[in-house]
Amino acid sequence: MSLKVAVLPNSTPDLDAALKSADATVTSLDDARAVIWTGSDQTGFPRELPANIEWVQLKSAGVRPWIASGCVDSRRTWTSAAGAYSDHVAEHAVALLLGCLRQFTLHARANIWLRDHTWATVRSLRGRTVAIVGAGSIGRAMIPLLNAHGARVIAINRSGCEVEGAVTTVTSRNLNDALAAADDAVLAGASTDETHRLIGPAQLAALGSDPRGGVPGVLVNIARGDLVDTAALTDALRGGTVGGAGLDVFDSEPLSAGDPLWSMDNVLITPHIATPKSSMLESFAAFVEENLRRFAAGRELMAEIDLNRSY
Amino acid sequence: MSLKVAVLPNSTPDLDAALKSADATVTSLDDARAVIWTGSDQTGFPRELPANIEWVQLKSAGVRPWIASGCVDSRRTWTSAAGAYSDHVAEHAVALLLGCLRQFTLHARANIWLRDHTWATVRSLRGRTVAIVGAGSIGRAMIPLLNAHGARVIAINRSGCEVEGAVTTVTSRNLNDALAAADDAVLAGASTDETHRLIGPAQLAALGSDPRGGVPGVLVNIARGDLVDTAALTDALRGGTVGGAGLDVFDSEPLSAGDPLWSMDNVLITPHIATPKSSMLESFAAFVEENLRRFAAGRELMAEIDLNRSY
Repeated sequence: MSLKVAVLPNSTPDLDAALKSADATVTSLDDARAVIWTGSDQTGFPRELPANIEWVQLKSAGVRPWIASGCVDSRRTWTSAAGAYSDHVAEHAVALLLGCLRQFTLHARANIWLRDHTWATVRSLRGRTVAIVGAGSIGRAMIPLLNAHGARVIAINRSGCEVEGAVTTVTSRNLNDALAAADDAVLAGASTDETHRLIGPAQLAALGSDPRGGVPGVLVNIARGDLVDTAALTDALRGGTVGGAGLDVFDSEPLSAGDPLWSMDNVLITPHIATPKSSMLESFAAFVEENLRRFAAGRELMAEIDLNRSY
Repeated sequence: MSLKVAVLPNSTPDLDAALKSADATVTSLDDARAVIWTGSDQTGFPRELPANIEWVQLKSAGVRPWIASGCVDSRRTWTSAAGAYSDHVAEHAVALLLGCLRQFTLHARANIWLRDHTWATVRSLRGRTVAIVGAGSIGRAMIPLLNAHGARVIAINRSGCEVEGAVTTVTSRNLNDALAAADDAVLAGASTDETHRLIGPAQLAALGSDPRGGVPGVLVNIARGDLVDTAALTDALRGGTVGGAGLDVFDSEPLSAGDPLWSMDNVLITPHIATPKSSMLESFAAFVEENLRRFAAGRELMAEIDLNRSY
């Protein structure tokens, strides 16, 4: 029998195809066993879900605001889309890293031939060591990319359990040593109480120590803005202890028009577009299809939200 | 016995280490069996080489200007550094492709939060099909990178002989069909009489046909400027038949200050820096070391110049 699902606030062609392929039927909230919520945040989310709803699938990968809002209850299963977009975000992280090493912002703004200035200071990613701070699904998706590019990876996670493809995995207690050992760093961790302002002056100084060939390393953030002390990062970029930054996420978004980061030629800013819209629609549909099949078969769902861990 | 080598016009620490490691001794031109030429062009190259010079190693990957200058004779073996820098150039090609798909030029110039404009039009490389025009050492070095990024590769070469890692290989006779089948294209071929202006209006129209999701593809050139009809490319970028271009090489370098390409927000220009200086010094030294070992052992050298083929 077809699984009855409510799709709110609206569906997409990709999602319609996924539902059909998973043999699910779209119905009303009162008649459904599951809700697929396609909104990017809580705006318009039903205040009270009827008891017949056993499972809610959210579109967001991060669930901190969902839990903070009180929407997520313990009367049913909630799943996020954690992991669904990791490949796209990992790609963007590599793009930002390459773009900083090869000084794309400076070149894009110069409008003149800067070879005499930049040939000696641009860098290849090949041969560099990159610290991935928070080796969850995005971090793990980055490793084969970085390895293909000839970079070594130091993975940093809470447990210190070995991450495949990394030359070393260290626990977050050794964060500063890992940053000192790396050329560049990518922030890929979830936003939690523990990771709030994880990268401050001491961490930036560690990253900037012992620069390779006199050119300090690059910091990339595709995770969440609050992982970084932005004032400290701005100082480090100005002072040259950090060579460049590729930033897709910010403490407060949109990044305010007057922010000094906008005017720095060693900063590559993108407006939270690591997962392009077209990729998000496609990837979310594929993710939902797999979870619908699992739900119908009574199997464990992907990305179940653990209310005790807020991610 | 140590191999006697002249290093002209000057050496580098990387090269000194390579010579030592290969058990070669630096000596004068009249006393040497081989010349390592570290100049980036023919400026200062000896007019007449003494008969004792059996082999000349050049630092350039492209040899067209060397052959045109008449320096290269048939009285000894000449080797270029073809292939020595391929990994770095391949990396830059991927960086430019990602940078165009994710609209880095527009974002770098905007200085404001463009999410509403660009989230719907940026693209992931994952899932795209990339035509590599000229699958020599740079093209082949790109394939594992593109595959790691989840892109499919159509390789285009003269022979049509299958290239490892490509989903299809076609001969250059089918160039236009291959461009039409691909989302994006990277020019990675050598500059020869056959490849001069290989990409003209018809090829750009083919690349622009059937755009994926309404967003036309990207052209990347990290090979030589004369592979492209620049006026036609400029028109195609203006008209939107080509979605973006990542260009590291130009017909005439430096690209002139008034060129319209400078002002286009869908064009990412770098000033012929695909192989960063530091990478070039390192990679050239490693290449020379291997060729010195081969020469000393009487084995075939890498990248011997074929005077009949001009690359």
